[in-house]
Amino acid sequence: MTYRDLNTPLRTIMTPGPVEVDPRVLRAMSTPIVGQFDPAFTTIMNEVMEMLRHLFQTKNKWAFPVDGTSRSGIEAMLCSVIEPGDKVLVPIFGRFGYLLTEICERYGAEVHTLECEWGTVFDQKVIIDEVRRISPKITAIVHGETSTGCMQPLDQIGAACRELDCLLIVDAVATTGGTPVKVDEWFIDGLIAGTQKCLSVPSGMAPITFNDRVEKVINARKKVERGISTDEDRIREQQLNHSFIKSNYFDLSMLQDYWGPRRLNHHTEATSMLYALREGLRILLEEGLDARFNRHLHHERALIAGIEAMGLALYGNRECKLPMVTCVTVPAGVEPESVRSMLLHEFGIEIASSFGPLHGKIWRIGSMGYSCRKENILFVLGALEAVLIRHGAKVETGKALQAALDVYQEKI
Amino acid sequence: MTYRDLNTPLRTIMTPGPVEVDPRVLRAMSTPIVGQFDPAFTTIMNEVMEMLRHLFQTKNKWAFPVDGTSRSGIEAMLCSVIEPGDKVLVPIFGRFGYLLTEICERYGAEVHTLECEWGTVFDQKVIIDEVRRISPKITAIVHGETSTGCMQPLDQIGAACRELDCLLIVDAVATTGGTPVKVDEWFIDGLIAGTQKCLSVPSGMAPITFNDRVEKVINARKKVERGISTDEDRIREQQLNHSFIKSNYFDLSMLQDYWGPRRLNHHTEATSMLYALREGLRILLEEGLDARFNRHLHHERALIAGIEAMGLALYGNRECKLPMVTCVTVPAGVEPESVRSMLLHEFGIEIASSFGPLHGKIWRIGSMGYSCRKENILFVLGALEAVLIRHGAKVETGKALQAALDVYQEKI
Repeated sequence: MTYRDLNTPLRTIMTPGPVEVDPRVLRAMSTPIVGQFDPAFTTIMNEVMEMLRHLFQTKNKWAFPVDGTSRSGIEAMLCSVIEPGDKVLVPIFGRFGYLLTEICERYGAEVHTLECEWGTVFDQKVIIDEVRRISPKITAIVHGETSTGCMQPLDQIGAACRELDCLLIVDAVATTGGTPVKVDEWFIDGLIAGTQKCLSVPSGMAPITFNDRVEKVINARKKVERGISTDEDRIREQQLNHSFIKSNYFDLSMLQDYWGPRRLNHHTEATSMLYALREGLRILLEEGLDARFNRHLHHERALIAGIEAMGLALYGNRECKLPMVTCVTVPAGVEPESVRSMLLHEFGIEIASSFGPLHGKIWRIGSMGYSCRKENILFVLGALEAVLIRHGAKVETGKALQAALDVYQEKI
Repeated sequence: MTYRDLNTPLRTIMTPGPVEVDPRVLRAMSTPIVGQFDPAFTTIMNEVMEMLRHLFQTKNKWAFPVDGTSRSGIEAMLCSVIEPGDKVLVPIFGRFGYLLTEICERYGAEVHTLECEWGTVFDQKVIIDEVRRISPKITAIVHGETSTGCMQPLDQIGAACRELDCLLIVDAVATTGGTPVKVDEWFIDGLIAGTQKCLSVPSGMAPITFNDRVEKVINARKKVERGISTDEDRIREQQLNHSFIKSNYFDLSMLQDYWGPRRLNHHTEATSMLYALREGLRILLEEGLDARFNRHLHHERALIAGIEAMGLALYGNRECKLPMVTCVTVPAGVEPESVRSMLLHEFGIEIASSFGPLHGKIWRIGSMGYSCRKENILFVLGALEAVLIRHGAKVETGKALQAALDVYQEKI
């Protein structure tokens, strides 16, 4: 039985993830592996924890990746704190808000939702008032909603949650590494990031962080699996009056002991993915958080200038626009999937459609991490103009690239 | 903030996993990524499914990786079939049997266990009789127990389970790719493999397969998450009279729709890990299953010959020895961790200790996948002899390598 060598096309990936991986990260992945308890490897584990604390702007003890894609981190965080019957508030402003409710419900939470129109976000006061009214144990919210291209301001909710004794859990999968995510300053108790977006590392890990308030909840439910638990573990477990965490794989109390000094054998850490994450974080910290956030804003500005110069309309409220996702309204009479297909097959460029009510209504152009660079912005603008012309759409010709180049010639 | 380039030592990894990754797999991981719904990528997904069917010797429709380490696959399989109160039989002959009970219990199963002495396995008749006696919905068992170096024969249990209407779920994490795992011939309903062992792919994916009997159970619990579900999904869900699968991430009914023609957006497939898995499978199929299994037996024979020529004793019953894990009894008076440490720090060789009652009593030497080759076997034997001499142990000197070389000079 013979299969051919892996032979993939080289794409310009301008979706809200996964995005192009930094070549240095790809190279790091080809490093020969070492064993999971090799001191050379545990040193790397500790370094990654330290780097993640910088990324998350936190002094939290716990910051490590869960071995799975982004939603594995979300599920690990939620299932480790939710006990059946716990009240959880989920403000929803797009598809990934529904994902949060979905996970909470599966783990037996009493879920309360707030919804606002897609394309907008919440006034923080509305959420805070609801926390006050229903006193949930947890408020779980998305920071950057890639499905609508909107970003929820979070600078006030956490302080209010803290005062009202509610845990604030934030899905910052789309935003981390591309725009400020201030865990400590915003009083976020637990936060989940993604690798395949602004970190420009392949999908397959979910960096998370949580503070001592979350740790207290987790430790009250801590159960070490038989086969490796000690007498001490078993005595402690008999005295607990909380339910155990349903999932073994996502049990953060055991993951803590794997990432902490006890080095309790749980899973076998995904070696090459951790090499990739380390390299992605190293590159990010070398660039600097502020420089990186400004880079995302700069290219966003060029992209928007080009889109608007072409005569296309952005979707969503500009005041809450997610800097690394630009949603474009599909012009009347144009078949949206045909445009995407021509971009892919003629130009090798991938942009995204959207979900549910927005499917077929908007395109979503990502400008994240390594994909967020001048040549990609210029290429997608030029290609989109050509493809729209080819589809008989009415566009201003020759203007998009000029507008983007103007932005790039500004002093920054 | 600056961190140094990733700079890891090159090790000879002779543990029961993770083991050395084939250089061709490492190289495949450095391939630039494509988007998850890019036709170039869905083609690769389909190829991997086809390759997995060959590996598992099955005609099953479903064979794909779960994005997480091996135990994520075990949890996905178990949590997708177990409803609270379901009776599950778990025959235990080492640590990973306990892991199965642990996961089953967390998901609310009524777990019945059988235990046999560590270092031995079950007479299949004992298990079949117990299935007959207690009529479990599921029997879950480990194939290769790396903690004790034993392999459970499975050629009769499945047929009996089929007759008694019990699902047989097998953890073949350690054995797949190194020794025959005949899913269809052995009537196995659901099976989980690992990447970081005999496939010589880094940890981070868990290839699984399941048949229509498992699919029927899963589909009866199928729930598509809100935000992407259709009216049709919701109508069907209202008519179900089974409980939904607790986990969203591990919900095999949604994973089926991601890997199947519906291509339902669930997680973002771990692109680079899938490239690695594809390359690992490609290499394996090129070598051929039988040739690969014989290679593992051949090097095992050389390793055992060397160990015994040195005067060391193997641990466990030889009749049920796991071909790719060789357990060595620590000689009296020797500090086992000091030996491991000297092997690592002087020779760059990693071998393993064990868990629970066997910790400090045995060393475990793996000979899996790419690590299972002549120079590694010879190096570990020579190094172990030298280190044992340095620890004042009474060993036959100069014999181990001669015995191993004798095996390698035999015609095979």
